[in-house]
This record gives sequence, structure tokens and C-alpha cells, in this order.
Amino acid sequence: MARPQTDIEAGRAELLTVVDDLVRKRGAVDISMTDLAAAAGMSPSNLYRFFENKEALLEAVAERFFEDKSKIMVEVTESDLPVRNKMYEFFARRFLVMVQKYEAEPDLLKSYLEIGQQHFEVVRGYVDLGDHYLSLIVAEAMEQGYFQGLSIDETVSLINQMIHCYTNPESIIYIGTGKLRVEKLAHIVDAMFNGLGVQASAELTKESHIKIVS
Amino acid sequence: MARPQTDIEAGRAELLTVVDDLVRKRGAVDISMTDLAAAAGMSPSNLYRFFENKEALLEAVAERFFEDKSKIMVEVTESDLPVRNKMYEFFARRFLVMVQKYEAEPDLLKSYLEIGQQHFEVVRGYVDLGDHYLSLIVAEAMEQGYFQGLSIDETVSLINQMIHCYTNPESIIYIGTGKLRVEKLAHIVDAMFNGLGVQASAELTKESHIKIVS
Repeated sequence: MARPQTDIEAGRAELLTVVDDLVRKRGAVDISMTDLAAAAGMSPSNLYRFFENKEALLEAVAERFFEDKSKIMVEVTESDLPVRNKMYEFFARRFLVMVQKYEAEPDLLKSYLEIGQQHFEVVRGYVDLGDHYLSLIVAEAMEQGYFQGLSIDETVSLINQMIHCYTNPESIIYIGTGKLRVEKLAHIVDAMFNGLGVQASAELTKESHIKIVS
Repeated sequence: MARPQTDIEAGRAELLTVVDDLVRKRGAVDISMTDLAAAAGMSPSNLYRFFENKEALLEAVAERFFEDKSKIMVEVTESDLPVRNKMYEFFARRFLVMVQKYEAEPDLLKSYLEIGQQHFEVVRGYVDLGDHYLSLIVAEAMEQGYFQGLSIDETVSLINQMIHCYTNPESIIYIGTGKLRVEKLAHIVDAMFNGLGVQASAELTKESHIKIVS
């Protein structure tokens, strides 16, 4: 008889905390199903009731890793905040969650980031999801006259580049929370809304004096 | 008798190409003076005529690594371009040099970046130099009324964050030159000049609804 769904869910959540412990102990080394079964004190065949294969396990790890961030994205996008505040909170809240995670257990975050790089196929969906929600906010801003002359995709890409330091967890590690502050993020969001769009930028590249010095 | 200075200079330049070869062959492993002497086919005591110690060698490696970028920074800052174009070229030219280096020998660049991380004390001076030249351009822009309500240091920090993708060589590797383009950089520079300064940003953080979701 199949276990009831809630038992499976509870078992999975418990197994994910065992994964945490393994990552704490071993760092970003690959965790096999056999390792996990041993660490959880269950037989491999029992483990497969919870995660049918390694991919399912990795997806569950990613889902939990991005859970808070996904929640924030939905909440902010669906809120009735003014669009500029939406943009700010879309980035600021997730940044603060990341800082909190980093400060609680820096090494655990670093290890998960490495695991994420090794299995980028699992992470890609979450990156795309972020772009999806961002483009909803951008479309709303465009209806109000912002980002004139740019397409949604161009705007999404420019915004992602301008706030890269606040979305890339590596930045928190290398630039540090002394320099990365939500007050600065607010200035950058303002620069987007006040300055990104029909501009003299065509002129900048057209009249460019760029020579490669070599 | 001491060798004439020009001979020393020529010898150093030659030894730096031997360092390139060693890095190509071995990657980012630490190169000792003994290794370098052996690879150059000279005695260690002869090598010490060119570099008095390991630190002097590392400084010479960094100096050559940043040579093009330093030249561009001086040239652009001292030019009589309009200040907005100065800002653009200050970042765009160095970005293009970096792309060129990366495309010519990606692995060599990656290895030097790793070596730079291992010896960040040698790199720090060049980062500070970049901030110094950037603050000259910012001061010039402020005289023309840009970035009102911000200090030079705040503006330098905000600009560094907004164009981080174009100055951080890791970005070229991980984001790629498909997404990082000087046309986008021009838009970001415009957003700085048109949008960074006395804004509603105080409002954004004051009225913030930020809650940490956990």
C-alpha cells in the first residue's frame, strides 16, 4: 500500500535536513542516494519511496532553497504597491533573505551555491521564473510610461545587470554587506525609473571613440 | 657590476612571458622563484637580479595584467570628452579589452583571476586606482549638476554597483558576451546620469513594507 501523501511530504522534509547535515559535514561534494540513505538510517529502497531518483532529490533541494524567494516574488508582484515600490521590494526582500541565510551559516550557503553551479540545469528554472515575474513588473511600469523606447526583454536584461550585485549571492560573499545596502538598492531602482529609456545612449555608442589599447 | 636598467627591464618582460607559459601549463598553482628560474633556464641567483623576491614578481605580474586598463583610465580621465561620454568610455573600453583577453585565451584569463584572488593584496591597489579615477569623473559631473544630494563616495559606490557586470571579469565568464554588450552599458550610463541623485529613494525605504519571509 502506498504511504499517504502527507507522510511522504514529511519524510521528504526530514530527508532534506539530513542533506543539510551532509553538506555541512562534507561541503559541496556530490551526495549519492546511497550516502543519503546511510546518513538517514534507512535502506536505499526505502529512500526511493521519497525521491524516485537523484534528479528528484536535487529538484527538491532547489525547491526548498528557492522557497522564500519564490514566495516573495509572487507576493510582491500580486501586491497593489506602486510599481516603483514593487520593483524595490522585489529585489530588496530577496536580498535581505539571502543576507540572513548567509549570516546564519556562511559555509552552508557557499556549499549550496557550489552545488547549484554543478547542477545548473536544476537552477535555471528559478532564474527564468525570476525573469518572468520581473517582466510583469516591467510591463506594468511601461503602461505608466516608464522605460520608453525599450522592449520588455531589453528592460529586464538591463535591470538584471544594474542590480546584479543584489541578486547574485556571490556578491554578498565577495563585496560584503558593508557595501551592499538596501538604501543603495533604492537609489539604483530610482535611477532605473528616472533614467532608463529614451535617452542619449544611441549617441554615446555612435560617437564613441573606442579604440582597443593593446 | 650592475646590469644596465634597460637590460633588467627586457629581462623582466621576458620572464613574464615565461610566467604565462607556466600558468598555461599548470593553471593557477603557486609559482615559486625556483620553478620560474628552472623554466627560464637560469640559476635562482640570476633570477633574483630581476625580481628581488616573490612579492616583486607578483607585483610585476599584476602591473602587466592591469597595464592596458590603467592606460585607458588615464587617457579617458584626461581627455576633453563630455563627462557622460567619459564615463561611458571609462567602462566600455576596459570591458572590451577584457573581452578581447578572454576570447584570446579563456583559460589563461581564468587562471590569472584565480591567482589574483589568492594574492588580493597585490590587486587591491588597482581597484583603488579605478575608484580614484572614477571619483575624478564623478566630481566633474557634479560640477555640471549631476548626482545631486549624493557625496562623491556614495556616487562612486553606486556606479560601481550598477556597472559591476562590466568591470568584474567573472561576469564575462558566467553571464557571457551575448548578454553583456556596450549598447547596454550605454543605457546604464544614461540611467546614472539621468536618474541617480535627489530622488524619491528615501521614500522607497521609508515606506518600505519589507518583511523577512522565513
